[in-house]
Amino acid sequence: IMKRRLLLVSNSTLHGGGYLDHCQQQIKDFFGKQVTRILFIPYALHDRDAYTRMARDKLKTLGYEVDSVHEAADPVEAVRKAEGIFIGGGNTFRLLKNLYDNNLVTEIRTRVLQDGVPYMGSSAGSNVATVSINTTNDMPIVCPPTFSAIGLVPFNINPHYLDPDPHSRHMGETREQRIMQYHEEPETPCVLGLREGSMLLVEGHKATLLGSTQARLFQRGKTTTEYAPGSDLSFLLTDAH
Amino acid sequence: IMKRRLLLVSNSTLHGGGYLDHCQQQIKDFFGKQVTRILFIPYALHDRDAYTRMARDKLKTLGYEVDSVHEAADPVEAVRKAEGIFIGGGNTFRLLKNLYDNNLVTEIRTRVLQDGVPYMGSSAGSNVATVSINTTNDMPIVCPPTFSAIGLVPFNINPHYLDPDPHSRHMGETREQRIMQYHEEPETPCVLGLREGSMLLVEGHKATLLGSTQARLFQRGKTTTEYAPGSDLSFLLTDAH
Repeated sequence: IMKRRLLLVSNSTLHGGGYLDHCQQQIKDFFGKQVTRILFIPYALHDRDAYTRMARDKLKTLGYEVDSVHEAADPVEAVRKAEGIFIGGGNTFRLLKNLYDNNLVTEIRTRVLQDGVPYMGSSAGSNVATVSINTTNDMPIVCPPTFSAIGLVPFNINPHYLDPDPHSRHMGETREQRIMQYHEEPETPCVLGLREGSMLLVEGHKATLLGSTQARLFQRGKTTTEYAPGSDLSFLLTDAH
Repeated sequence: IMKRRLLLVSNSTLHGGGYLDHCQQQIKDFFGKQVTRILFIPYALHDRDAYTRMARDKLKTLGYEVDSVHEAADPVEAVRKAEGIFIGGGNTFRLLKNLYDNNLVTEIRTRVLQDGVPYMGSSAGSNVATVSINTTNDMPIVCPPTFSAIGLVPFNINPHYLDPDPHSRHMGETREQRIMQYHEEPETPCVLGLREGSMLLVEGHKATLLGSTQARLFQRGKTTTEYAPGSDLSFLLTDAH
């Protein structure tokens, strides 16, 4: 776990910008110059070819070549050889089901935690990096074998975290109410609500909030807390969380 | 199936009104005077006692006594004896898990389809009446054994259906995009998006849209269609849908 390096991004695209524009500096800082090829996992979207083209085009401008796991003859072998991993956003249920169907969950965990392969996730790709996908916003369009995920950190993330709209007349639950309902269930881990524009950098036992927006932390039985960009969130990596 | 009677409501509370106010006339028309006691299923919310009190108070003003399944020594027996069933809203995953944990899914299906017991659902309670909960809006806070639901109709519902907000800067998928993603998966049934204020009345092989708002129908590989209150949607009950 000392080798663990993660960049968990709330959202792939920020309003008014292009794909991964808002986090491109953090991506370059994260993968650095040692990594030259990144293994992309496009499982969260239906059109994997188109998705891979988009990721490949963008990451090329940052100096990285992209191999997609769906183009590999053996996906497990592709993970075993990867210098860096990027799991893109889309539907979290579809993503997790495909990761299990291709036997990649344990393999990715091993590569990241034991071999120190840097892992970047965006939206659904951040959800699956955590304990479970119990706090995704997505529609359950397919059923994965379990909601347990790769487990690279001991807490959950809610990407695209959204504050209530005071003018809304819609009566569906707010995001906060949904996360509170999660914490009505026993032994549920804390949930970091990453607003669009924010991301979490994890290096070994250190976690830092990056980006342009605050994050909101939900802990079972405690009041919620706001954290500004630059905050040290390393306490989330201890077992108690 | 000729005996089937369902009232599937999009939302329990409409903006500016009280609990079940917006559909109280339809509830009275639906259960009528033959039904005197309604079996309430509060499994979608954590505080079942408080939820039952709310349902009991409201339905009493409409002339019905309420028994809650969570107060029964034997939930299956309570369903077997029920004159009418009402499943309330809340979290759809929690609701479906509790229905399976208490062996009620098959029992309710039998009572409604074979014995003609009237079934009212609201929000999550409408989701579980359909083929599956694949088109719920809720957070997957617990994992039911399957997403397959009671199956009283051969299509799915999206309750609280929401049109895109043209002014939003939020980059999460719109409701329509989410349902489109569901239809990227093979052999997925059509989805009736019930906006807040609308409800579907099913009597045998006849289905009618009631309430104050339009519904939007999504069919795999076809363009979406809008239906006004009063529309005959009986075609949804045939096997082709």
